[in-house]
Amino acid sequence: MKAKIMIKSIDLFDEKGFTETSIQDIVDSIDATKGTFYYYFTSKQELLRDIHLTYIHNLLKEQAEIINDSSKNVKEKLYTMIYSIINKIETQGKYARIIFREMRHLDDANLEQIKQKRKEFRLNFEKLIQEGVDKGEFQSQVRTDILSFAILGMVNRTYYWFQPDGELSEEELTDLYMEMILNGIN
Amino acid sequence: MKAKIMIKSIDLFDEKGFTETSIQDIVDSIDATKGTFYYYFTSKQELLRDIHLTYIHNLLKEQAEIINDSSKNVKEKLYTMIYSIINKIETQGKYARIIFREMRHLDDANLEQIKQKRKEFRLNFEKLIQEGVDKGEFQSQVRTDILSFAILGMVNRTYYWFQPDGELSEEELTDLYMEMILNGIN
Repeated sequence: MKAKIMIKSIDLFDEKGFTETSIQDIVDSIDATKGTFYYYFTSKQELLRDIHLTYIHNLLKEQAEIINDSSKNVKEKLYTMIYSIINKIETQGKYARIIFREMRHLDDANLEQIKQKRKEFRLNFEKLIQEGVDKGEFQSQVRTDILSFAILGMVNRTYYWFQPDGELSEEELTDLYMEMILNGIN
Repeated sequence: MKAKIMIKSIDLFDEKGFTETSIQDIVDSIDATKGTFYYYFTSKQELLRDIHLTYIHNLLKEQAEIINDSSKNVKEKLYTMIYSIINKIETQGKYARIIFREMRHLDDANLEQIKQKRKEFRLNFEKLIQEGVDKGEFQSQVRTDILSFAILGMVNRTYYWFQPDGELSEEELTDLYMEMILNGIN
């Protein structure tokens, strides 16, 4: 039931916005009562925090699996990390949009917790790029923190324009990003 | 007075959110009356549209100046276009955040108008990159539309993490982006 509330809320928040969605709207959409809602969450804000945390935990778990895959070199790991973000657009695009848009509705303690997780996610990119530099797979003189911000900015933005069912596949897009990241346009 | 209303509203929308800010809040903040507000805007939504349009018009105007500057080659124009986005973070960061976050509060006709302008802004990047390819300044085989999405994603995201008064200057950051875009990390 907890998962069901979260999934339906994502739909409602995406359509109407967080502020405009009431707890009554949420329970009506799953034929439940407010009592059920308050059994799982103390407030709408706690629900929003849990949506954020679930999303980020899943991303971090997947990242850890990629990092620990000893069959891949750094370039292959970077490819897989980027692909795993693009690959989620179809199923989890709503999640990502809500996360960016409704962040400010979290209170300071919740926001801090989520910012830490997001930072961890970005730092995993930075560490991977640094590993590539250390091993001689990458030659760039650009600071690895800036590279991680740049790559994540580029890849995350995909959520706003890419049509997963369009003429370009998720694999092809990842290839193009990798070509640009590795070789530039010069 | 119209500009004053817009500027104060940006502060309020950034702080409290569009939905949570009432017309009363806006007029109170500048010691005016609702009559004054309705003299310039038919609704809060029209105000939001005008904020968006003003911002995008300014960006497009600046882009046109860069494109028409015959003293610069394509690489220099690309540098200047990127710099002009980063350079606005300090003064216009709030604008940009509101634009991303509050887009959904615009009605369909307004949204369409703004989407067209945003597209024009991205297409100017795409055309510039295409010009670079045609002139042999850029060698990339990557589609220029994807390059324009990628570069804009990277640069626009800067608004969320870059501290203009930090240890890295706006010029240095633009240099690093250009180094990555031109030469990659391979």
